[in-house]
Amino acid sequence: MPQNKQIVLDNRPVGEASPANFRLRVTETPPLQEGQVLVRHHYLSLDPYMRGRMNEGKSYAEPQPLGEVMIGGTVGEVVESRHPKFKPGDAVVGMGGWQEYSVVDADQPGALRKVDTTHVPLSYYLGAVGMPGVTAWYGLVKIIEPKAGETLVVSAATGAVGSAFAALGKARGCRVVGIAGGAEKCRYAVEELGFDACIDYKPHPDAHSLSKAVKDACPNGVDGYFENVGGMVLDAVMLRMNAHGRIAVCGMIAGYDGQPLPMAHPALILVSRLKMQGFIVSEHMEVWPEALTELATLVATGKLRPRETIAQGIESAPEAFIGLLKGRNLGKQLVKLI
Amino acid sequence: MPQNKQIVLDNRPVGEASPANFRLRVTETPPLQEGQVLVRHHYLSLDPYMRGRMNEGKSYAEPQPLGEVMIGGTVGEVVESRHPKFKPGDAVVGMGGWQEYSVVDADQPGALRKVDTTHVPLSYYLGAVGMPGVTAWYGLVKIIEPKAGETLVVSAATGAVGSAFAALGKARGCRVVGIAGGAEKCRYAVEELGFDACIDYKPHPDAHSLSKAVKDACPNGVDGYFENVGGMVLDAVMLRMNAHGRIAVCGMIAGYDGQPLPMAHPALILVSRLKMQGFIVSEHMEVWPEALTELATLVATGKLRPRETIAQGIESAPEAFIGLLKGRNLGKQLVKLI
Repeated sequence: MPQNKQIVLDNRPVGEASPANFRLRVTETPPLQEGQVLVRHHYLSLDPYMRGRMNEGKSYAEPQPLGEVMIGGTVGEVVESRHPKFKPGDAVVGMGGWQEYSVVDADQPGALRKVDTTHVPLSYYLGAVGMPGVTAWYGLVKIIEPKAGETLVVSAATGAVGSAFAALGKARGCRVVGIAGGAEKCRYAVEELGFDACIDYKPHPDAHSLSKAVKDACPNGVDGYFENVGGMVLDAVMLRMNAHGRIAVCGMIAGYDGQPLPMAHPALILVSRLKMQGFIVSEHMEVWPEALTELATLVATGKLRPRETIAQGIESAPEAFIGLLKGRNLGKQLVKLI
Repeated sequence: MPQNKQIVLDNRPVGEASPANFRLRVTETPPLQEGQVLVRHHYLSLDPYMRGRMNEGKSYAEPQPLGEVMIGGTVGEVVESRHPKFKPGDAVVGMGGWQEYSVVDADQPGALRKVDTTHVPLSYYLGAVGMPGVTAWYGLVKIIEPKAGETLVVSAATGAVGSAFAALGKARGCRVVGIAGGAEKCRYAVEELGFDACIDYKPHPDAHSLSKAVKDACPNGVDGYFENVGGMVLDAVMLRMNAHGRIAVCGMIAGYDGQPLPMAHPALILVSRLKMQGFIVSEHMEVWPEALTELATLVATGKLRPRETIAQGIESAPEAFIGLLKGRNLGKQLVKLI
């Protein structure tokens, strides 16, 4: 029975989230029942959607219950198994949460998946070849439906989703433009992630100003937009959407901390005959195999070379998560647990 | 050469549109060239989209040029023809504009179409069996894609588009709820147009209050919404959309007169995984035959019994148009020209 350190949600944020919303708890892993597997986590994934779960109000998912282990994707290895399909040493991906070990009912569909680490590093199954990669794939392929030669824009461009979006968009013959916070991130986007251009939103005081920068970076207008942030960035890009443009809405992180942010010009949906569609990738499990295959190939062939920002130890998870919300990470934010 | 009275746009509105934006002009119809047809208009259609055209700024169409005859749909009869497919007495529908006669290049695709008035009154080709009817059809069938048993909502419920929407939605086994201004319109919606319920938005001071009325009228939430007005009504309905709801955006008339109206809760697009799509029916000519066939059948079988509000004489068009914008009409607003 190994000792298991866990992070639970202690209290809900009022305004901005902070490390004080979380609490460390130390337990022991329980003995396995028939059909269960004990997984030792190597990496915990930190993702923006977790901020939405911290709030009380109904979002698309139930709020994270207080006093329970924070939800989260994990990769690791099987250390003990009472399930015929898993054996000690298997590399697995699952939703183990913010803790060092998890006990998984392995018969539950989608609960635990074996992965191959020959060509893809284990941690990538939480990023480029995992939920964030499939998120980019779904928004691009199923909502934006790009044609070669079109111009695509993605916000939070250097994050796990944005990085994958760039590689997937370039593979389809599109011009791909990122929006990110800071010159360093923008340089990284162009030099390492393959973006054709990247706009630093930080010097822009308002949507009007940012919109001019979008115009400069997208001389033929914007055909497809992948929205990770909302607020001023959404307003700015909407002003540059071409007729019949498509907007995949994946995140509205700008509005998580307080009052809901309005959309300045909804009449553009009509004027430019836009399609805007929100989605959650976990509701579209049918596309995962196809998407993961393409993403793994992009990684194996060096066309998708994502970076990771790695915090060490479960105790560092709260601070690392707040850093992610503030954009301090470059690429996929992980916590290394071994 | 008959005398032809025309209404031209004289100056652009500052804030609200008014009859003083228009000017009457009297001319003579020119002699016909080969391939042309002279049409005497029986009815002129007045439609909300015309308000958008009066503004200077680029909308989805070029602005209406100053000093030229206002654009508009017309039905009438051929009085003289130099085109082999048309002869005097033919009933026709076209875009003749705000005038008593028009000279039409009948070879131009879509410029002039012969219609059958055996089962459908001529004026209906400007409403239920015309552009407004096809508009309702496109938004419902191609964007909302309703399933039997779902709940649909339409704003400006008693107008030409809303009336057709109700009949089309009921034909698909849906619960159809209208939103309109005033108790009289709501009574008409339920008693004559077949709406299951109709909400009078006028007593509601804000979106929150209106949203409660939407909840009462739609106990199972809203699956499909057809938006004709924007502003507070859109905000109110969005709060009641079910997961995976669809919003067809056809009009944003609430914002035509001044500052753009924001959307209060765009994050709902993500939270409820909504699809919002703007459209202009003239860009989808491929659906017109199928749509018109269904609409004509609904009229012929008494399942769609639209009302008309009819002003007399071309001189009354500006005042009638302002009345339409203020919601003074019941059903399709027409101007009778003979």
